[in-house]
Amino acid sequence: MKTVIKNATLISISEKREKIEEKVDIEIENTQITKIEKNIPIDGADKIIDATGKIVMPGLINTHAHVPMSIFRETVDGYSLQEWLTQKIWPMEDKLTEEDIYDASLLSFIEMIKTGTTTINDMYFMTEDIIKAAKKAKIRLQTSRTLMGQDDEAGNKRIEELEALLEKEAGKDELITFNVGVHGLYTSSREYVNKCANYAQKKGLPIHIHFCENTKEVEDIKQNYQTSPTEVLKQELSNVKLILAHSVKVDEKEIEELKKLNVSISHCPISNLKLGCGVANITEMLKQGINVTIGTDGQGSGSNLDLFEQMKYTALLQKGIQEDATVLPAYEVLKMATINGAKALGLEEKIGSIEEGKKADIILLDLNEAVTNPINDIYSDIVYNAKGTNVVTTIINGRVVMENRKIEQEENQIYEKCKKIIDRIKA
Amino acid sequence: MKTVIKNATLISISEKREKIEEKVDIEIENTQITKIEKNIPIDGADKIIDATGKIVMPGLINTHAHVPMSIFRETVDGYSLQEWLTQKIWPMEDKLTEEDIYDASLLSFIEMIKTGTTTINDMYFMTEDIIKAAKKAKIRLQTSRTLMGQDDEAGNKRIEELEALLEKEAGKDELITFNVGVHGLYTSSREYVNKCANYAQKKGLPIHIHFCENTKEVEDIKQNYQTSPTEVLKQELSNVKLILAHSVKVDEKEIEELKKLNVSISHCPISNLKLGCGVANITEMLKQGINVTIGTDGQGSGSNLDLFEQMKYTALLQKGIQEDATVLPAYEVLKMATINGAKALGLEEKIGSIEEGKKADIILLDLNEAVTNPINDIYSDIVYNAKGTNVVTTIINGRVVMENRKIEQEENQIYEKCKKIIDRIKA
Repeated sequence: MKTVIKNATLISISEKREKIEEKVDIEIENTQITKIEKNIPIDGADKIIDATGKIVMPGLINTHAHVPMSIFRETVDGYSLQEWLTQKIWPMEDKLTEEDIYDASLLSFIEMIKTGTTTINDMYFMTEDIIKAAKKAKIRLQTSRTLMGQDDEAGNKRIEELEALLEKEAGKDELITFNVGVHGLYTSSREYVNKCANYAQKKGLPIHIHFCENTKEVEDIKQNYQTSPTEVLKQELSNVKLILAHSVKVDEKEIEELKKLNVSISHCPISNLKLGCGVANITEMLKQGINVTIGTDGQGSGSNLDLFEQMKYTALLQKGIQEDATVLPAYEVLKMATINGAKALGLEEKIGSIEEGKKADIILLDLNEAVTNPINDIYSDIVYNAKGTNVVTTIINGRVVMENRKIEQEENQIYEKCKKIIDRIKA
Repeated sequence: MKTVIKNATLISISEKREKIEEKVDIEIENTQITKIEKNIPIDGADKIIDATGKIVMPGLINTHAHVPMSIFRETVDGYSLQEWLTQKIWPMEDKLTEEDIYDASLLSFIEMIKTGTTTINDMYFMTEDIIKAAKKAKIRLQTSRTLMGQDDEAGNKRIEELEALLEKEAGKDELITFNVGVHGLYTSSREYVNKCANYAQKKGLPIHIHFCENTKEVEDIKQNYQTSPTEVLKQELSNVKLILAHSVKVDEKEIEELKKLNVSISHCPISNLKLGCGVANITEMLKQGINVTIGTDGQGSGSNLDLFEQMKYTALLQKGIQEDATVLPAYEVLKMATINGAKALGLEEKIGSIEEGKKADIILLDLNEAVTNPINDIYSDIVYNAKGTNVVTTIINGRVVMENRKIEQEENQIYEKCKKIIDRIKA
């Protein structure tokens, strides 16, 4: 299968290339980008995509989500985090069936495809059904069976379930990769965290964990571990690659320590605002050279999976909170949502930029509408004015999963199924 | 001309009605809403709009903008406010012709119509050309010739120009109303501000003014007036109705004073972040009963005129900055972008809600897409997930100016003209 994208305005996010190239063609053989140059011949191509007047850029990478939470969209307004979880979410989650998880995940994957995200890092349970939906949607997924609790029968059973999942699924499908999802320090004992770290090290997998999301979490950790969250990372998790979701409540000194631990941060600005957590100081993190990436969190708190929105919040919040309009240029934000995300997930050799030899995870944007005209700075126009709906075509691993906004799935059928799920399980 | 909207899910923002009504019809005779009830007969109707499955709500009201600044979209990234204005904007503005102002304004009005805003409060110059474009686009405009400077020949000439404009245009077209736009306390002398206040009082018009946008402005005012900005309002502007744009740098005590002055605030969250100004404490303003409304500011700093985006920023910033997820429910934000805006502009008898007897400024939203499903809370879904592009139909003063996303203007022609303007004038 050979696909040629013709006549693109290319923002490759590759350090090997110019930042922006006009009228370039991209050749894709099966799953891989094989050539990027002007005037690639189209003879022998099975598919030609005309990108005249379109921006072509890498598919976006969402480094923190809870995929099946699409059905909990907009259930949170007026609740504090604790009330929302205990009174609304947990009782509903208890009623979820495997089929529900599959349908709710499929809705999230449709959201991703329709808003230009090609890879997502998930943390939830009933992971086999999430994987099944990912295969159906043909998106790139990194996931885990989430671990939490004590070093006891229940806690160890979760590790066994993850082990069984890896046995069954790992290495079978190049779109599906794994990490070790540990819910958080505040929901696990020191002994259990240590066990998870050793397990991750043995498997050669990164750990994906909630970290310092709000003040209460930090206080709980300090009480349970008798030391600061960052110190716990140093003591128990320094032997593994870490993806820390949130990291709102860390000070400059802790950021220094996090840099030494070589962590990646998944910044989830919308969820952090909506749950009243605050704003992470990613300006300082970037200054210290930490790999900062972007996540949506679950739709219950993050509202939706549109990473274009998250990019805009990422940029604006730093300028506003630091009271400095010059911080965090738009191009840096584009890197956070692409190549930085790939690095966090250990996939930087495969995805995150458009380069010969990399996998073809590519999106086409049409910016010809009132709110994006005239284009005075293309990076700013993407970060501040483009929305997921400007994505017209989405390619994942060489496969065109959306073309001119049309996808393979029956959208309305999925919406109806998800509506029925939430109507059935809500209190 | 009789139009009937059939089968709407109505969010009227009227205190006389239920917050949400299902399967309602709305009858419009010429410019006015004449009937809202179930099963209005369609015989005799010139136009029928099927709103099955659609949200029908009041057109949004943008209380602070600089309409012709569409052409300066995304010219600011990496600049401080002062550098951006002096090095980029002002030299370009000097080169603008009347035709440029017309074309750039038309682009803004297209943006509005395509994102569901039906009324805009403008502050700029060459106002006649802005009005000409508003008439072409058939949108509702409140405007002024902007006043600034000293009580000298140049300053007085500006007031004379405003007087001539009012002579020529006031009361001629029901879509076009006026206020007295005073640029700011920091760009005018006390004597001149006093003169503007007396002029506004004489004309019975509100004053629209930039107020406490950032720290530097406050410092400048303190130096020039030898007192605080709020004190200057009390001393010089207590005899007129005030629309204060921004009001980021005011503390709780000043908010108390602003309430006594009965001001309206135009909150412009995106511009305030982008220019590194900070976040206005509208939670406190609302608590004290101040009429808080929403503006975009010019696209140079506000990026675009999509008020759906501004509503989301408005809600999220308060929750995040106050670190309290329960503040500012979504429905309150909808009021800010509709009826509160109408009150600020003195148009609450005419617009801002859908009621019998009011003017027909109405929008239809289609929320049937992945990021808005399932709908668990309709107000939250509008505030947090809808975008301007979800608006399918826009009605202003009874006239359908957009139907199924199609507008009367030649969009691409306007985009090209605006591109040429910026290419010609940029340094």
